[in-house]
Amino acid sequence: MIEYRNLRVALLGAGSVGAQVASLLLEHGPELATRAGAGLELVGIAVRDLDAPRTADLPRELFTTDAESLILGADIVIELMGGIEPARTLILQALGSGADVITGNKALLATHGPELFEMAEQVGAQLYYEAAVAGAIPIIRPLRDSLAGDRIKRILGIVNGTTNFILDRMDTAGESLEQALATATDLGYAEKSDPSADIEGFDAAQKTAILASLAFHTTVPLDLVYREGITGVTLAEVEAAKRAGYVVKLLAICERLTDADGVEGVSARVYPALVPRSHPLAAVHGAKNAVFIEAEAAGDLMFYGAGAGGVETASAVLGDLVSAARRHVIGGPGVAESTHANLPILPISHVTTRYQITLSVTDEPGVLASVATLFSEHGVSVEAVTQSVSSSEEGAHPTATLVIGTHEASEAALAATVAALGESAVVSHVTSVLRVEGS
Amino acid sequence: MIEYRNLRVALLGAGSVGAQVASLLLEHGPELATRAGAGLELVGIAVRDLDAPRTADLPRELFTTDAESLILGADIVIELMGGIEPARTLILQALGSGADVITGNKALLATHGPELFEMAEQVGAQLYYEAAVAGAIPIIRPLRDSLAGDRIKRILGIVNGTTNFILDRMDTAGESLEQALATATDLGYAEKSDPSADIEGFDAAQKTAILASLAFHTTVPLDLVYREGITGVTLAEVEAAKRAGYVVKLLAICERLTDADGVEGVSARVYPALVPRSHPLAAVHGAKNAVFIEAEAAGDLMFYGAGAGGVETASAVLGDLVSAARRHVIGGPGVAESTHANLPILPISHVTTRYQITLSVTDEPGVLASVATLFSEHGVSVEAVTQSVSSSEEGAHPTATLVIGTHEASEAALAATVAALGESAVVSHVTSVLRVEGS
Repeated sequence: MIEYRNLRVALLGAGSVGAQVASLLLEHGPELATRAGAGLELVGIAVRDLDAPRTADLPRELFTTDAESLILGADIVIELMGGIEPARTLILQALGSGADVITGNKALLATHGPELFEMAEQVGAQLYYEAAVAGAIPIIRPLRDSLAGDRIKRILGIVNGTTNFILDRMDTAGESLEQALATATDLGYAEKSDPSADIEGFDAAQKTAILASLAFHTTVPLDLVYREGITGVTLAEVEAAKRAGYVVKLLAICERLTDADGVEGVSARVYPALVPRSHPLAAVHGAKNAVFIEAEAAGDLMFYGAGAGGVETASAVLGDLVSAARRHVIGGPGVAESTHANLPILPISHVTTRYQITLSVTDEPGVLASVATLFSEHGVSVEAVTQSVSSSEEGAHPTATLVIGTHEASEAALAATVAALGESAVVSHVTSVLRVEGS
Repeated sequence: MIEYRNLRVALLGAGSVGAQVASLLLEHGPELATRAGAGLELVGIAVRDLDAPRTADLPRELFTTDAESLILGADIVIELMGGIEPARTLILQALGSGADVITGNKALLATHGPELFEMAEQVGAQLYYEAAVAGAIPIIRPLRDSLAGDRIKRILGIVNGTTNFILDRMDTAGESLEQALATATDLGYAEKSDPSADIEGFDAAQKTAILASLAFHTTVPLDLVYREGITGVTLAEVEAAKRAGYVVKLLAICERLTDADGVEGVSARVYPALVPRSHPLAAVHGAKNAVFIEAEAAGDLMFYGAGAGGVETASAVLGDLVSAARRHVIGGPGVAESTHANLPILPISHVTTRYQITLSVTDEPGVLASVATLFSEHGVSVEAVTQSVSSSEEGAHPTATLVIGTHEASEAALAATVAALGESAVVSHVTSVLRVEGS
């Protein structure tokens, strides 16, 4: 029996996620009310264009273009417009009026998160954002609550479905990057007009900033997240990785580390990396997402599921809505931001990892020795070298391909090594430099 | 800055999990206090035997044999003794005195859960139990909060590490059940004195009851969970499964279903089943656990990690401890039990699934036709038949092996079919009947 008054829910945005949220809220209202302890009344949906086509059939009278008036009377505001403005201003207004806010806006959280959380704290309102990272996968609550008694060492995440789809096509169907991108665009995974948010790693970087902030209780600004996209990944690299027992994945990495000077800090970075085939992340195919967490006590955990999609992401939004409603009814804590640790954010040069470097070299005696010397001069220890079949063009010097796997080395030492390799007389060119993660 | 008074934490039990909880709590006290918003003071550890060896070095003055006195002065009681009594009485006393309780006691929750939750609700205290299912893996909060706005259709869980280890050894190392059990015992995964809680599926059934109750907002009594262990699984079955593209896993299955009479209900069951190699659960090796959730909106999700182990499970307990402490500081909802749906629990005979049946038959014309007729007479539709190499002993009738895969059929129809096969003149014997799940 529900004795609490109805809660007024305002929705901003009716795109693929917003339309599904509205549709599910209208369809499952009574069931959600039972779980929340209060009726949930959708009082309106703010959109830019009243006549735009929608993916769900929604009552026309709910739509309005006047977002500001809509949020004024709301207990809970769901922001699913995306982008920085007017989303930022509307969320600040909503929080300012005492409403709890639910958002899936990763770009906004990654750039203006602290401002929004500060406003929420000042007025005692709550800001929920389960949908902002990894779509339907519950990751915010597990990090914030379930692992609150543990210390997170590292997170390796596949948090962008489009790039995972592309890399998976390259790996399983032998498509080139361009072909795989075209397939992704045809299937609606990639934006036709501008796929750069995905393939350049901007989307993954935003999610990395949010995850790292949460995992390490530290504000991680987006511009301190190191970022490389997948545009430089070649089919030859993917195929060579396959032969060597690896798969190439675009990883969002959040790591607690102590650098050479003994400074404890946080590294947040996004780049394509070699992942051993035996690692659970290697089995994440298609547009699926997964977040792999290494914690001091809990050990290795993985959360897997749909990282995007209207109805899938709507599930995360509605979970937040029920939590927000319960808090209205019973009171108590929501998803507060916690930045008490405030660790320094370390630049990529402080990171150490393993590398796999592919070189095209002159095939003559002494080359391996001189390449090996060059690595050791820069303090990079070689773990394994594979020399593959020589090829030579008519009249040219014969060449060979060297694949060099290193032990853990710093980014700084590696960058110096690669620069020196580029200038070496015996090296024709540096074909590929990839980091190895998850091993 | 922490302004709240210290919270008094009493620990009952100092086995492998309890000792790690105490050790981590003492070691990370200040960090946990910052996250919880209050100091967490371990006021005592109740044990049966003060001189028993412990897996962690803990201050001797904390130990007591007087559990009742210890809980009287506690704000939060952590019960990690296991077993029904005295755990049940002590938890009821703790809740009765207004303390919040954290437990990892699956046997107790599966048998006396409603009594404990009712007491908690009466006095406004909370009962947390993240550690009771799948050890370190956050599963209770995701089910209760993150998916609160969704409808769960089905859960397929690998929730017993010992049996997963055994089945994995059979699959990957070709060991017999007995050999694999011996390996598991040597490595400390299986109880030497009595492995039946694991291999007969009792442990998995307890976790199934807890998961099903939570997922479907319905009290699921342990004795209504259908249970088969792995003792009947042969190496021949595991190898045949491998050839057919399957792996045998002991699954905890919680399913919302509508039976032939249109009755909506819940099925909770545990049995070894064939899982397609392409299913994410097939990649769960060794003693790891994983819970695969199929939700209406969110789609497929999987939670993966360590299902047991002292320090791993301690992570889940400490996560609950921080939640409980936050609730003391800020107030608000904890992990309340919700049984508002109260769906009927359907017996195994109402379940439909696919089957793979292996028969030894007389190798003569017309056998396949008579077997096929027998299936169709019982309303079980055959999807595929494979007849493998005949073998015959000197002087005996030649025999062949038939592997029959069915479409979805009810347990009742299948049981009738298998009974009829057993009586058929052309069937020498029914070698194996396995259900197929996750496809």
